[in-house]
Amino acid sequence: MRLSERLRRAVDAADSLLCVGLDPQPERTPPTEIVGFNRAVIEAAGEFVCAFKPQSAFYEAAGAAGWEALGRTIELIRELAPHAVVVLDAKRGDIAHTARAYAAAAFEQFGADAVTASPYLGGDSLAPFLERPEHGAFVLCRTSNPGSGDFQSLSVQGADGAEPLYERVARQAAEWAAEHHNNVGLVVGATYPGELARVRMLCPTLPILLPGIGAQGGDLEAALAAGLDAQGRGLLVSASRSVIYAGGAAEIAAEAARLRGAINTLRERSGDARAC
Amino acid sequence: MRLSERLRRAVDAADSLLCVGLDPQPERTPPTEIVGFNRAVIEAAGEFVCAFKPQSAFYEAAGAAGWEALGRTIELIRELAPHAVVVLDAKRGDIAHTARAYAAAAFEQFGADAVTASPYLGGDSLAPFLERPEHGAFVLCRTSNPGSGDFQSLSVQGADGAEPLYERVARQAAEWAAEHHNNVGLVVGATYPGELARVRMLCPTLPILLPGIGAQGGDLEAALAAGLDAQGRGLLVSASRSVIYAGGAAEIAAEAARLRGAINTLRERSGDARAC
Repeated sequence: MRLSERLRRAVDAADSLLCVGLDPQPERTPPTEIVGFNRAVIEAAGEFVCAFKPQSAFYEAAGAAGWEALGRTIELIRELAPHAVVVLDAKRGDIAHTARAYAAAAFEQFGADAVTASPYLGGDSLAPFLERPEHGAFVLCRTSNPGSGDFQSLSVQGADGAEPLYERVARQAAEWAAEHHNNVGLVVGATYPGELARVRMLCPTLPILLPGIGAQGGDLEAALAAGLDAQGRGLLVSASRSVIYAGGAAEIAAEAARLRGAINTLRERSGDARAC
Repeated sequence: MRLSERLRRAVDAADSLLCVGLDPQPERTPPTEIVGFNRAVIEAAGEFVCAFKPQSAFYEAAGAAGWEALGRTIELIRELAPHAVVVLDAKRGDIAHTARAYAAAAFEQFGADAVTASPYLGGDSLAPFLERPEHGAFVLCRTSNPGSGDFQSLSVQGADGAEPLYERVARQAAEWAAEHHNNVGLVVGATYPGELARVRMLCPTLPILLPGIGAQGGDLEAALAAGLDAQGRGLLVSASRSVIYAGGAAEIAAEAARLRGAINTLRERSGDARAC
């Protein structure tokens, strides 16, 4: 199944745009406990999410045992929440020959559906992630961190005048999506709703992975108003620490349900606004 | 020992600017053979190199066994070529909280000296790699692949007028180096000697990791003329497939020795040219 269709069905199955980041923090979850910890989160939050997003760094920091845990975690998602899309948050970016090995790691070794990737090396570096319609990449566009403006906001000169680099990346990503299998998304931080609105205008149909809700402090209402597409979809609203460390299974489920509900309320409101 | 001093001593110890990429290709070296393959390369080429550079992707593509092999490979470098600097070629780039986990993976789990990293997320995303003077990062600047111009060559507007994005990254990296422990380098492909010369002019003292020699077809003479610093140093000239798949131990040693010799001849010539 094409990634775009897989994502559409996942949103329908859980009636949710929520994506939960499976980011076991080394200081809170020792390597030997990662799989059990993730199992509890997947069981508790699975029905409330359209996607899970394991962050590669937190598995790598646990060495080979962490790598094993990442593989096992993705298997558990398939078993316990088979509707959910798996985005491996790896932000890879390398020359094509090497990117092919990264794609093999993400899609064959780990069985993820999509990865996050960096645009800095250009189109040929991303192509290995986009060759198969059932897989794809979310390309970094405007990230949620304070230093994201160092380069992403620089004004670049193009054929049609000046624009910030992140907008150029967004427009380029839309071209890549058309050249491949509509399997390109963007990563735009919830902490910058103004920029998110610009990206949504430039890319009306691209899925946008939206980190920065929760621990990073982004405003959910402003971000959804800026980022939802014309169907009240098109976002993967990503929360991690605020969900996975909410407490026991009941608290994790409650927090995931609360976020799904808050997002759906805002989706309905934006649908009403469009209907006016 | 500070990374800059560690690198200076490695160059002296082997009288070499050669960096050999330990990039076991999945189609040629099965996962179970990676460690033995790398051991042979390290033994054969060790005395001719200042650095080894394992490319993370080729280990990740082998799953948890590959991750074990990466750890064992770096241990073998410490045993068999203790003078050599270890650059983990991972091109990581994520928000600071996550980058800290990547730094833990690279420096604590694997014991690498330095990593390659992407600049796209800005200064705060790189800081976790630069906090300790004995570690550091080579930041992607102008890469060797055909698509590198998609964004890296875009003209960006700054306080002092327009410049290509890669030059802005280079100037910014020099500032980061000064703010931290002079432990920031750049990655500039040998396939673009004109751009390399600009980067060297902007950053006279930064070490530059120079991929693109060998299998990627870059011209060694042009690249060295463009990239050597005023002391005939400042480059890590990286070759991978052309060395590690040269044949048996004798052929690997011969190819590494040949490259070291070719580089040193050009270094001497450039020293003569400076003396005129």
